[in-house]
Amino acid sequence: MAALWPGPRPGAAPVPGALEAVVQALRERADASLAELVEFAGIPSVSAQSAYAPDMERAPGWLAERLNRAGMEGVALWPTAGHPAVYGQWLGAPEAPTVLVYGHYDVQPPEPLELWNTPPFTPTVVGDRLYGRGVSDDKGPLLLSVQVLGAFLSAHGRLPLNVKVLFEGEEEIGSAHLGDLVAQRAAELKADFVISADGGMWSADFPSLTVSGRGIAALDFSVYGPARDLHSGRHGGALHNPLHAAAALVAGLHDAAGRVTVPGFYDGVRELSSEQRAALARLPHSDAAYLDLTGAPDVYGEAGYSTLERQWHRPTAEVNGLWGGYTGEGGKTVLPAEAHVKLTCRLVPGQDPDDVLDKLRAHLRAQTPPGVRLEVHPSDHTGRAYALAADHPGRRAALKVLRDLYGQSPLEVGMGGSIPILDTFRSVLGLETLLFSFAVGDENIHAPNEFFRIGRLYEGQEAWARLLWALAND
Amino acid sequence: MAALWPGPRPGAAPVPGALEAVVQALRERADASLAELVEFAGIPSVSAQSAYAPDMERAPGWLAERLNRAGMEGVALWPTAGHPAVYGQWLGAPEAPTVLVYGHYDVQPPEPLELWNTPPFTPTVVGDRLYGRGVSDDKGPLLLSVQVLGAFLSAHGRLPLNVKVLFEGEEEIGSAHLGDLVAQRAAELKADFVISADGGMWSADFPSLTVSGRGIAALDFSVYGPARDLHSGRHGGALHNPLHAAAALVAGLHDAAGRVTVPGFYDGVRELSSEQRAALARLPHSDAAYLDLTGAPDVYGEAGYSTLERQWHRPTAEVNGLWGGYTGEGGKTVLPAEAHVKLTCRLVPGQDPDDVLDKLRAHLRAQTPPGVRLEVHPSDHTGRAYALAADHPGRRAALKVLRDLYGQSPLEVGMGGSIPILDTFRSVLGLETLLFSFAVGDENIHAPNEFFRIGRLYEGQEAWARLLWALAND
Repeated sequence: MAALWPGPRPGAAPVPGALEAVVQALRERADASLAELVEFAGIPSVSAQSAYAPDMERAPGWLAERLNRAGMEGVALWPTAGHPAVYGQWLGAPEAPTVLVYGHYDVQPPEPLELWNTPPFTPTVVGDRLYGRGVSDDKGPLLLSVQVLGAFLSAHGRLPLNVKVLFEGEEEIGSAHLGDLVAQRAAELKADFVISADGGMWSADFPSLTVSGRGIAALDFSVYGPARDLHSGRHGGALHNPLHAAAALVAGLHDAAGRVTVPGFYDGVRELSSEQRAALARLPHSDAAYLDLTGAPDVYGEAGYSTLERQWHRPTAEVNGLWGGYTGEGGKTVLPAEAHVKLTCRLVPGQDPDDVLDKLRAHLRAQTPPGVRLEVHPSDHTGRAYALAADHPGRRAALKVLRDLYGQSPLEVGMGGSIPILDTFRSVLGLETLLFSFAVGDENIHAPNEFFRIGRLYEGQEAWARLLWALAND
Repeated sequence: MAALWPGPRPGAAPVPGALEAVVQALRERADASLAELVEFAGIPSVSAQSAYAPDMERAPGWLAERLNRAGMEGVALWPTAGHPAVYGQWLGAPEAPTVLVYGHYDVQPPEPLELWNTPPFTPTVVGDRLYGRGVSDDKGPLLLSVQVLGAFLSAHGRLPLNVKVLFEGEEEIGSAHLGDLVAQRAAELKADFVISADGGMWSADFPSLTVSGRGIAALDFSVYGPARDLHSGRHGGALHNPLHAAAALVAGLHDAAGRVTVPGFYDGVRELSSEQRAALARLPHSDAAYLDLTGAPDVYGEAGYSTLERQWHRPTAEVNGLWGGYTGEGGKTVLPAEAHVKLTCRLVPGQDPDDVLDKLRAHLRAQTPPGVRLEVHPSDHTGRAYALAADHPGRRAALKVLRDLYGQSPLEVGMGGSIPILDTFRSVLGLETLLFSFAVGDENIHAPNEFFRIGRLYEGQEAWARLLWALAND
């Protein structure tokens, strides 16, 4: 496996002399590092499904044990009203800055199982990739940061700066309890800024730094008609069909131009400046390549915006699941009793998640026709959009590290997805967050056949070593 | 159980003397008759789901054996390209008419299982009802006709007229192969008309005869977007969501007045005459009672029509199932790769099922937006609408029998549901069909907790005895 350690990129700057022992220690542990990830991702820590409750206890235990082995101090499970967070620290550099490393040990549900080529919780090496649920989001990127801390502490007995780590277990269900935890532990979490191992690079071909992310607001709704499923021949035409009503509510969320119709949805949303649009247009994006990657027949979205503008800088209302009636083999002529919809909105700066949910709820109520009953269930899965200032020291250091490591200037990109905790760190602790992940956006996260590039495990280790050193010394 | 034999209704005409021995034989076998139904309905003969294939062999075998025990002759399983039909005959009355008795031994799938109060395939007596999948549709009504043939043959050694029985196993999946079978066996099926044990009375409170039924045309369609489920944060807004597209297609099937929007859908549909509407308005229907029965919040449908007009005499386009994306516990932020819809239309006289399917397909194709791909799968589940002439001898005899049995004039009603075989008997064999079932429309057919009123098993037996005698002697 050590053969999968990539050689230096053309044009890369040599590793600073002070880091050679650390990088050497990582290189010697290359096989062990991968084996650890296989073991960690073999724990099915699915936070959304109660059947995995025992695994949601094993995963933080495993991680705490790994932090202890790395030499971190004060390692503890911090209980929450949901799944616990894992904390650790090393504070032996009083003159140096303090960073708070963030990641999450929980993963998305593995369904639909039948589309996986390898078992989701038996991480499997195929070529230069490791396949398994959570290897890219976020166990690989998280674990490599711990491995770097271990390499510093084993090579030098110290870190170049003060580090606190906080790994949560509810990111995939909206980090519902971490806000309370962070508020309660604010003193212990004091730091200069956060480095997140969650995030991801935009493309496998170019180094990139993600400097903005969309927010999220989630809501489920159900439409109820008759008290039970009825015969659609006997009753069809005389009672409203909850699936018809749910479909009309979903169809009514967008107009013909692809704009969200919810009144007030775009309140506070700033239009992109012509400079922003020009910078986005210069990025190496091609719709044709994007369609190759996703297999979609065509791009589609809000009229007047490019694909990257739609992905990073425009808000959405997106149905993640819809179901009702008979969904099995063959036919069953029912007029169903109920229909269910799972919906998430992606938000941009200027939108407040709770405000958006209020408007969405009011819109759905106003659009519900007679003959059915609507129930709306807003979820705790909310977070504001995020953007890191251009002059933030973490941003400047990270750009230099990526340029040194990859031999080319990294792209500064947006992110369509949401890490609600970024909003929490800013609003509760007053800390900005640097996203410094070595996952890549094409790694099938939240989908079957999620994978992580094994070379990125090792590149990510070297990058984190360079970053921690640079933050202390540059 | 014999206690559940209902006494004579007030005003009922006495059983003709020639029938007394037959009715006595049925009364003595009351417990056995119910036990036979429990046994028959205990066979999970679900035609739509391949997991039940062994039971779909057991059920026709059980039925053939019962026909042999009744004393019927030439009992045979008639193979088809799908599930076999069960045939039997008694032709010992050369001067008398010949009737062909129709029913079906297959049943609807039992899902959703969690809503059943008793196991669907362990038929269970609760009070004066028998609960179980298929007890009302159509095993109870079918079986009682066989029990009457057995009672005649045991009491008198003969039937009052010639009887052929044909019980199929594919009614719940559209009787796909029975048309071919009937065409191929046309000579053996020669008769004066058909009596169907499938159908059902309109209400438990009034005897009724169903003299019209809607036709059916079924079609599934799927909408495909990206090649696999994608992260809805990363990709949302830039690719079309198949659930959005499917919802828009479903929502676009009806206009704001509840009319089907498919161009040409209403071609050939005759408006109700003012006489028809007046007759329907005189029937003992109340929307309030109907809402009590169904638990729906309100009636809903095509503007300008009453509930009974909508149920019996107006065509529909009805979604029976719709699904896509993540439908499990918690949330999963996917932009799904596909969405699926099961759709059935109910048809009225003047509409051709194949023509309607063609128009529907063309409409869906025309409405499919860019960014997704549509696949349409028409099903074999088709049948034209049906109406029995006012002067048909079977209709006249049945009205008299019901009046004699129940002591009141039966209502002549329509049926929202479809029995496609009625169309087959008319077009292939040139035979009209009398619907003479003792199921009632409120018995949760095609839904959880299907039941059959045990008293109707015994009333149905007496009614069939009276009908067969009347057809030969009146």
